[in-house]
Amino acid sequence: MSVTVNAYHAPMGRWEPDSRGRLQEAALALYSERGFDQTTAAQIAARAGVTERTFFRHFADKREVLFGGSALLQELIVAGVAGAPAADGPLAAVARGLDAAATMLGEFRRDLSRQRQAVIAANPELRERELAKLADYAVAVAAALHQRGVHEPQATLAAEAGMTVLRVALQRWADADVDQGLDAVMRDSVAELRALTTGL
Amino acid sequence: MSVTVNAYHAPMGRWEPDSRGRLQEAALALYSERGFDQTTAAQIAARAGVTERTFFRHFADKREVLFGGSALLQELIVAGVAGAPAADGPLAAVARGLDAAATMLGEFRRDLSRQRQAVIAANPELRERELAKLADYAVAVAAALHQRGVHEPQATLAAEAGMTVLRVALQRWADADVDQGLDAVMRDSVAELRALTTGL
Repeated sequence: MSVTVNAYHAPMGRWEPDSRGRLQEAALALYSERGFDQTTAAQIAARAGVTERTFFRHFADKREVLFGGSALLQELIVAGVAGAPAADGPLAAVARGLDAAATMLGEFRRDLSRQRQAVIAANPELRERELAKLADYAVAVAAALHQRGVHEPQATLAAEAGMTVLRVALQRWADADVDQGLDAVMRDSVAELRALTTGL
Repeated sequence: MSVTVNAYHAPMGRWEPDSRGRLQEAALALYSERGFDQTTAAQIAARAGVTERTFFRHFADKREVLFGGSALLQELIVAGVAGAPAADGPLAAVARGLDAAATMLGEFRRDLSRQRQAVIAANPELRERELAKLADYAVAVAAALHQRGVHEPQATLAAEAGMTVLRVALQRWADADVDQGLDAVMRDSVAELRALTTGL
């Protein structure tokens, strides 16, 4: 997987950031400093030291800087669920999808992930968009569970619960002071969900 | 509780619908027939046999016909969680909040509830708004759990899982052919969630 297709986190190398990575880092910095609505593509390009045309070669608009990686992320999650061993129950299969998501999202810089979360939380329209993306993932995961023979309402409940874990784990990981990998945080969060419901 | 404050479902009596109830029923019919974006307040008023001014006395805009009851619903859910017996674990407390929601939402006509769900599902903007409302409920429920001494991430996981159950149960109830009460569907759905995670 090329890191440049991921837009959830800036896919820049540590020493030689490419244009796309520089644009993402510049965009997140500007969204954080002055707000998403107040930032223009021209400003992002200037901050990244590239032309506005270069910006639009990488992103359809300034929102895509935040959400451009979501199609790939959904594919990876669904592939994880579909590829789970036949013996896995619905939530165990969803946990395989979350592992796949953690592998993709955990590759990138945690400080930029934290910035992205803060920018989205501060803007109602972006927050609604983020929730809609997670709901789309849940629909796709439920469909993958149907393929495995899981019925309703179990499929939707497992898929939605999984997307809740994804959201909570991402936030925990971004906020954490200790350097725990996203994969570990994700597994902990699945275990917490399990503990919760068994304690009902 | 006056039924006229609920906008999730048309709060009309069976024999003598008031203006607000007639407006809600007319709005849902028009949203279903021609789409939400294509419907105007004037058309809703005409269909309900009232003036446009009467429409705006009851609703700030045509979106509020669908979402006007959400503040009360959130209050009821939070009160249910806060009032749960001290011995209740996080998810058991959330289930009390869901019982309260079922009591409010289950009073109204199932056919109108089904129409509302279909209208929202058909319009991305309305769907994002509905998801944002549910996310707001989850934040409020997590805060109520914090008050009960529940820590993170358990509080957020329990709250979000509860809102998933609410959404799934509402859909099941609206879609069902048999006349099972929403409260029963809600409890079944909580049990399904529990069964899912114990089978991990």
